[in-house]
Amino acid sequence: MKRSLGAKTLAMPAPVWLVGTYDTEGKPNIMTAAWGGICCSKPPCVAISLRRATYSYASIEARKAFTISIPSEAQVKMADFVGMESGKDLDKFAVCHLNPVRSDLVDAPYVAETPLILECSLIHTLEIGLHSLFVGEILDVKAEESVIDKKGKPDIEKIQPLIFDPAHQNYFGIGHALGKAFDIGKSLNLKE
Amino acid sequence: MKRSLGAKTLAMPAPVWLVGTYDTEGKPNIMTAAWGGICCSKPPCVAISLRRATYSYASIEARKAFTISIPSEAQVKMADFVGMESGKDLDKFAVCHLNPVRSDLVDAPYVAETPLILECSLIHTLEIGLHSLFVGEILDVKAEESVIDKKGKPDIEKIQPLIFDPAHQNYFGIGHALGKAFDIGKSLNLKE
Repeated sequence: MKRSLGAKTLAMPAPVWLVGTYDTEGKPNIMTAAWGGICCSKPPCVAISLRRATYSYASIEARKAFTISIPSEAQVKMADFVGMESGKDLDKFAVCHLNPVRSDLVDAPYVAETPLILECSLIHTLEIGLHSLFVGEILDVKAEESVIDKKGKPDIEKIQPLIFDPAHQNYFGIGHALGKAFDIGKSLNLKE
Repeated sequence: MKRSLGAKTLAMPAPVWLVGTYDTEGKPNIMTAAWGGICCSKPPCVAISLRRATYSYASIEARKAFTISIPSEAQVKMADFVGMESGKDLDKFAVCHLNPVRSDLVDAPYVAETPLILECSLIHTLEIGLHSLFVGEILDVKAEESVIDKKGKPDIEKIQPLIFDPAHQNYFGIGHALGKAFDIGKSLNLKE
């Protein structure tokens, strides 16, 4: 028997991503977003939701582009700081000692210091309510050599991405491996 | 210096959710979805992306509703199994010994055995490419008493939700707590 908790944004896990944009004057900016996820395999796309009141919102609309820089556990304080300040008031790259890298594919900067980044071209905007959903086509993913394994894939255990818990607004790390997808289910005991 | 990995769905972390629907004959069905995320705070909404080829796709379009049942680590084999089979061929609730519960708010069933569930009314459909994005307004969240803390909130460490790694297609658990959001960033050393 389950208890009703009301109409709340209690889906788990949520990501912790830094959304990179250029403002109207070309100043690089980042904001922290937890409302997002992959939304299409072909073309590869990712969705992020922003409030219209954010400084980044107008930048994405104007430049039709954004990046996602995925911070690691060691960068949790920075990621949280970036989520509390506005690019309207502050040069967050400068204050956080982060280096903006101009994407050669889209009109947006990414964070040099995060292990994994996605360069996205805006292809859809869906106004929902307080948040609008931006769908970005992923034109490239770039990773630090140190987090790429022998197969040329990024290793999630080396990236150590952050997880956001929307119930208590806490950050968590990645835990232990539980098994291979499209495989571990074959050993499910159906006779139990 | 980062290495280019190409245009791929490599955003981390991704969730592992069971999407519950009724088919045209009223048979309850679940499928596993990793392409999704919260997408609006007011009204509270969640987005999931499905391929048109899935059996669940038509059910969501017809009933304008779906649920999200969030499995725990102990249910990883079941969650994976559900992602490999189609409701067209199989009664996945029956085969997995799961009990469908008819939502009293939307025209969709949820899984009795998962610790946390969301009941969603379809408010937007966005065709992107191979996947279409469904935005569901969260009308209620329900949790098992055993995962609700003293403050009446679901405890992510008791729920133990699954994390999907899209790079290697592995499942992971939740790791350790790293700090409080909108707080830990205040102690960022800006002089470093």
